[in-house]
Amino acid sequence: MPVVAVIGDGQLARMMQTEAIELGVETRVLASNDDASAAQVFGDVRLGDYTVLEHLRAVVDGADAVTFDHEHVPNEYAQLLIDDGVTVEPRPEALIYAQDKLEQRKRLAEAGLPVPAFAAVESVADAEVFWDETGGQVCLKATRGGYDGHGVWFPATREECAELVEELLGRDLPLMAEQKVAFTRELSAMVARNRSGDVRAWPVVESRQDGGICRVAIAPAPNMSAELAERCEELAVRVAEGLGVTGVLAVELFEFEGENGPEVSVNELAMRPHNTGHWTQDGCVTSQFEQHLRAVLDWPLGAVDRCAPATVMVNTLGGEEDPDTPMSERVIAVMRKYPQVKVHLYGKDHRPGRKMGHVNVNADTVDEALAIAEDAAHYIINATWKD
Amino acid sequence: MPVVAVIGDGQLARMMQTEAIELGVETRVLASNDDASAAQVFGDVRLGDYTVLEHLRAVVDGADAVTFDHEHVPNEYAQLLIDDGVTVEPRPEALIYAQDKLEQRKRLAEAGLPVPAFAAVESVADAEVFWDETGGQVCLKATRGGYDGHGVWFPATREECAELVEELLGRDLPLMAEQKVAFTRELSAMVARNRSGDVRAWPVVESRQDGGICRVAIAPAPNMSAELAERCEELAVRVAEGLGVTGVLAVELFEFEGENGPEVSVNELAMRPHNTGHWTQDGCVTSQFEQHLRAVLDWPLGAVDRCAPATVMVNTLGGEEDPDTPMSERVIAVMRKYPQVKVHLYGKDHRPGRKMGHVNVNADTVDEALAIAEDAAHYIINATWKD
Repeated sequence: MPVVAVIGDGQLARMMQTEAIELGVETRVLASNDDASAAQVFGDVRLGDYTVLEHLRAVVDGADAVTFDHEHVPNEYAQLLIDDGVTVEPRPEALIYAQDKLEQRKRLAEAGLPVPAFAAVESVADAEVFWDETGGQVCLKATRGGYDGHGVWFPATREECAELVEELLGRDLPLMAEQKVAFTRELSAMVARNRSGDVRAWPVVESRQDGGICRVAIAPAPNMSAELAERCEELAVRVAEGLGVTGVLAVELFEFEGENGPEVSVNELAMRPHNTGHWTQDGCVTSQFEQHLRAVLDWPLGAVDRCAPATVMVNTLGGEEDPDTPMSERVIAVMRKYPQVKVHLYGKDHRPGRKMGHVNVNADTVDEALAIAEDAAHYIINATWKD
Repeated sequence: MPVVAVIGDGQLARMMQTEAIELGVETRVLASNDDASAAQVFGDVRLGDYTVLEHLRAVVDGADAVTFDHEHVPNEYAQLLIDDGVTVEPRPEALIYAQDKLEQRKRLAEAGLPVPAFAAVESVADAEVFWDETGGQVCLKATRGGYDGHGVWFPATREECAELVEELLGRDLPLMAEQKVAFTRELSAMVARNRSGDVRAWPVVESRQDGGICRVAIAPAPNMSAELAERCEELAVRVAEGLGVTGVLAVELFEFEGENGPEVSVNELAMRPHNTGHWTQDGCVTSQFEQHLRAVLDWPLGAVDRCAPATVMVNTLGGEEDPDTPMSERVIAVMRKYPQVKVHLYGKDHRPGRKMGHVNVNADTVDEALAIAEDAAHYIINATWKD
């Protein structure tokens, strides 16, 4: 059976390990420390730094495929590994479009895919032109390195925009501007694609963010026409195929009111398992973590049928304060009240806002699943019930 | 979060680890070697021998609960650990009834539970008396140490029975005799019970054996009245409660034609996750492995609702010869033909008859799930399709 090396030690790598165990796929992880989320649960842990080529070379040696739980491995190093004959998935020529927002916008626009109006910002003047063109509907973004709401700014006035751009460019931050979308909600269309071109799209979900951090995913996205759902799935497939993505791809979408009803445009891309896909662990025949392993090994992809009419995922983000009630007592209380809740924890210590785990709930209706999942997550975070 | 120490390094421990990762429960395993099925996938592997008290003491040190993937830890050692203040589940006073078939029969009969006629066999005369009482419907069993068809004999004649008993007693094998049951099929009723007395019963399944080894499990057991299914589940609950079992309990049953329709009697007990419960990984809200961990931690038990109308599990037992086609190629072929098949492999090298993995299939009907699961398992074993 093949060996997969995973670069990155977070919860995504951890949850890949769960599926690898059942598939009988051997794994190793490159981790920064022994106590990292994934390092706790891999049998073969290599300590090192993913920005050091020698550490990368050591962990990939003899592996049949190499993949990531984040997009921060320097592309030139990934390319060197490929030049060594290593199978690295996704490849740098695809990954660049998840890493560089400006390159991504250009490429998606060229392909005729829906993206908000955008412009490179290399000077204050660039920003001012864009401000005027959009009537001040401006979102500034670092083209690289942003995540979970970091690296995104919404200046309120033309002057604030100009000052911000001056300051950020002064820090050598590569910038772009994008037209703010008056979205009605956020969606996520996820697909997996293997090197041979096999593609499978999960049902599109509604995601709810809090301060730029995903908090809830609802599958399937409620109150959506079959036509729009299909359009979102096709869009994600086109992105995966157009960019040559291997593995799991999340296409985060804005839904907004168009002239002829709801429309979507692309917000972000992630080329790895994604928070908005955690529901697939308990809500789909094949989870995003199993599918990612299959895709990077160029194995046939699994069925993505749902297991229940509705599945809701709610993150258990670290609260402002960590309650005195130990985590195990909180889990016990949730399990007592809700025997159907699936608790997933990442082995992380408390930090405010930190992604420490999530709960998944299957039910006959979205409302029922959502109410249970919200209440359960609230207790795990706060040691109190929601109402 | 609590720490669970697992004694035993087989696939049952391996599949507990899968669930422990998601629950955020920390684990360690006592393994005989680094390459054992479970040792491959635990972060914390302690090499040692489960019949050596010092090795047991080392692995359980500081653990919140200790459990097993087999029933072979000497009870006197388990008791010493309990005397040290360690939480060991299931406890020796329950385990004895899974270890000693004669004690089990006596206890179940006392409790009014259905068991075949039986007798201790301490001499050839004992066996001959039983032979005559049952009209030669005799099954001889080693009271301890049997598994997967080992330790069970079916003498064809009174003379053969006498000779066999003489030989086995001469080897100091403790023996019992049991009336052969003209069963129509085998069933398995599985429950989990935690120390606080919370009990949950999975739907009763039909199991199909081959040479004493479980090969197929069909959930729910087809062609069974709701009344009989309920009776089987209640029976399993009574056994769990009567014997004070903690963790997962499998009650293997014979179904036979009684005077007023189908009846059942108890065949075997196992106090751990069981081969006939592997289907719960993909067919139930809570798998037997998660439930076992929850039970031994005295956590509330999870829902046992089914995820599909029918789930079938087929073991991938090592064939007489290992095909030249590598296992990964066989898995790929199965995944290509059947995107809905869930492949589970244990990381074991080939040996004829060895339990190397299993497949689970959910479908709308038993027939459909069975046909797919049989074909998929056949390919994984033989690298050829069934037809």
